[in-house]
Amino acid sequence: MSDRNSCDAYLSANKQRFQDELFELLRIPSVSTLPEHAPDLCRAAEFVASKLRVAGLENVAVIPTDKHPLIYGDWLHASGAPTVLCYGHYDVQPAEPLEEWKSPPFEPTIRDGSVYARGAADDKGQLYIHIKAVEALHAVRGDLPLNIKFLIEGEEEVGGESISAYLAANREKLEADAALISDTSMYAPGLPSLDIGLRGMIYQEWEASGPAQDLHSGMYGGAAPNAVFGLVELLAKCKSADGVCQIPGFYDDVEPPAREEKESWERLPFSETDYLENEVGSSRLTGEPGYSVMERTWARPTFEVHGIGGGFTGPGAKTVIPAKAYAKVSMRLVPNQDPQKLLEAIERFVADNTPAGIRIRIRQMYASPASMVSPDNPFIQKAAAALTETFGAQTVFTRCGGSIPIVGEFLEELGIPTVLMGFGLPDDSLHGPNEKFLLENFQMGIRAVVNFFESLAPA
Amino acid sequence: MSDRNSCDAYLSANKQRFQDELFELLRIPSVSTLPEHAPDLCRAAEFVASKLRVAGLENVAVIPTDKHPLIYGDWLHASGAPTVLCYGHYDVQPAEPLEEWKSPPFEPTIRDGSVYARGAADDKGQLYIHIKAVEALHAVRGDLPLNIKFLIEGEEEVGGESISAYLAANREKLEADAALISDTSMYAPGLPSLDIGLRGMIYQEWEASGPAQDLHSGMYGGAAPNAVFGLVELLAKCKSADGVCQIPGFYDDVEPPAREEKESWERLPFSETDYLENEVGSSRLTGEPGYSVMERTWARPTFEVHGIGGGFTGPGAKTVIPAKAYAKVSMRLVPNQDPQKLLEAIERFVADNTPAGIRIRIRQMYASPASMVSPDNPFIQKAAAALTETFGAQTVFTRCGGSIPIVGEFLEELGIPTVLMGFGLPDDSLHGPNEKFLLENFQMGIRAVVNFFESLAPA
Repeated sequence: MSDRNSCDAYLSANKQRFQDELFELLRIPSVSTLPEHAPDLCRAAEFVASKLRVAGLENVAVIPTDKHPLIYGDWLHASGAPTVLCYGHYDVQPAEPLEEWKSPPFEPTIRDGSVYARGAADDKGQLYIHIKAVEALHAVRGDLPLNIKFLIEGEEEVGGESISAYLAANREKLEADAALISDTSMYAPGLPSLDIGLRGMIYQEWEASGPAQDLHSGMYGGAAPNAVFGLVELLAKCKSADGVCQIPGFYDDVEPPAREEKESWERLPFSETDYLENEVGSSRLTGEPGYSVMERTWARPTFEVHGIGGGFTGPGAKTVIPAKAYAKVSMRLVPNQDPQKLLEAIERFVADNTPAGIRIRIRQMYASPASMVSPDNPFIQKAAAALTETFGAQTVFTRCGGSIPIVGEFLEELGIPTVLMGFGLPDDSLHGPNEKFLLENFQMGIRAVVNFFESLAPA
Repeated sequence: MSDRNSCDAYLSANKQRFQDELFELLRIPSVSTLPEHAPDLCRAAEFVASKLRVAGLENVAVIPTDKHPLIYGDWLHASGAPTVLCYGHYDVQPAEPLEEWKSPPFEPTIRDGSVYARGAADDKGQLYIHIKAVEALHAVRGDLPLNIKFLIEGEEEVGGESISAYLAANREKLEADAALISDTSMYAPGLPSLDIGLRGMIYQEWEASGPAQDLHSGMYGGAAPNAVFGLVELLAKCKSADGVCQIPGFYDDVEPPAREEKESWERLPFSETDYLENEVGSSRLTGEPGYSVMERTWARPTFEVHGIGGGFTGPGAKTVIPAKAYAKVSMRLVPNQDPQKLLEAIERFVADNTPAGIRIRIRQMYASPASMVSPDNPFIQKAAAALTETFGAQTVFTRCGGSIPIVGEFLEELGIPTVLMGFGLPDDSLHGPNEKFLLENFQMGIRAVVNFFESLAPA
């Protein structure tokens, strides 16, 4: 029996156990942004580390950081073979609004072949694919066809400061030929995809102050500045009704996609009606006129408000002129936009447009550039072949509108390209309620990564 | 010893007890908008009723309603004398934001001669003035110089629906010649004031819906409508940067103050610098150009946002395109503006200006017109004389930018004018943190109401 067949048999025999283990990981509410979940992050890290050891990895360590631990592990005995650095994150987004979940976010529940849980697709289910692929190869062969390093973090959803510092301080230890990340989606069910572009992101908190304290709107209404309205005025100036960001210089350096890439997007299966009705679920789409949905979400920068608060928001009525208001805003960046240059442009714009009587304080949270990799890169080519073989369909090259800052850091610090082999689906509801992950993609994903790793063995 | 002197002696002798009783009332957290405080509302109502009985009132009853109880009491044995209906409210605004209070909102604390507590000035301290004035007169004289009815409610801060219904159903029982309300402020310390005009108010909750659920801003940013941004766009359109409401027809029916009244305002002591620095505490005032602060806050309608919420507002970052957002908005109305006509104008404006892909639902909460009383009314004249005598300073006629809907209802249902004899001060922080009430005004207020009531005795 060939390795390939043995591997298939191993995956079949252990299918239920792999799923049970994943569910165990999904039950840990490792919400990195909420301080009260710090112990859950540690639990999740220990769980992942223990599974790396089971998979045959060596030098496995849970590495404490200023915030949430990193996990490292390696297997470096395939002389002459390339080294792949597998990255994933065990932290998840908050589950709120809880009342919109059909089953509890941290109690994985199967419906229609998918597991519903916070982190199912982003990224626990996908990082677990890497671990189980290595376990299968190691169990069947007694070794691995390539050199492997794992670096897994618990701060992806909160800016990833610790991994950045670790990366900068451990360049030699982390040396590799390419990185592998499974934290994105396939373009459509059954259509294997490789993301060759990611948007970058600037994330900020804006706090508006008006009067020294909340004032009675009867007594002071008409004369006192209102922090909520001041913030509303400023935010409304940031983007036109048709979605064009109004910050001067915002689009100056935007590099449009090459004609060939744009044409390939036009060949992808896409129904705007289906997208509107079944994915977005609103009465109309929005965004810059003259650009397709793919261009708007993959190749155009955006300005969004993620949350806003201020004044009295309890039940009933309270007639205050609020003293404070705040908003969380982000800008998604595309290739060739310089985050540092934009930070300055934002600061100027806010200073120039702050309403009378209002003070705005900007709290800078993250800033990372967009990243692109060439479809001709040999790792991309081999990954595409492995996916095509596994799924029995031609792999397509897409981009992802989301941001995975680590991809830029791998390029900058380690000089390596990243293979973004995503097994999620567009309707997985990442960051929203009822996040899910198709269990068939979990199994196919393990097989695809096995195939990819085998294809990297020296001839 | 004359009644007047006996009354003074009684007030002096009972000063500490009156204050202790008021503090007991202030300790009851009768926040009418929060359902969990319903038992506190009942406790406060029973407390007030018991003190009405002590004061010598008859037929005292705590009247159950759909929400919070009303309290009634009367003394009707002064034949040939007029009847005054005393109104007050024992409910209070929520105390949030709690962290801004220097002492706990429901633990009355004296600092610099004022008692700090939620409801100290609005309206527990002021309604208690009426009760103690009646008690003093009744204790000293064995009767009262006029006929008195009390009607006290627990829903003033949440729309006063129960009292409206009660008023409409009990016109005969409540028949009177004038109403007396102490729920406003003196224009300045030591300067007795009668408010002869109040603004009306429309209060609404606006809810914006965008996508069917929160979406990942990386995946959908650039194509999916954002409920928070949609609401921000709509709100920003409601008012210009210089405070002019943009709803068509909003100012059409506004009746400006008479030249004489406007001129009298110009003679009032007012420092815009002091107002800006010590009352508002912001870097600049706002509001319609060409109108003085008094005109803007007393005689011009306003549009305000009292609270806003939506999306992710916890600590840290979450990159969602929010599905929902909401705001609490109000418009203060001035004489001759018709709330019903404005409600229709608002509805049209919102429909015409709702951003693409967003739905807005308006929840109508209150609508009451502005109200005015003539300074030549005999009750106003006698009240002015009593205040002038008590404080040793000429009473001024002012307006109040706030809204006391019951004043309009007393006029409409009972055909009576209202004397607004306020003992608060402009910096009492009504509805805000650190609400206070000057204890000297509490004592002087009781004396002034005693004097007013005595001046109404038949010659």
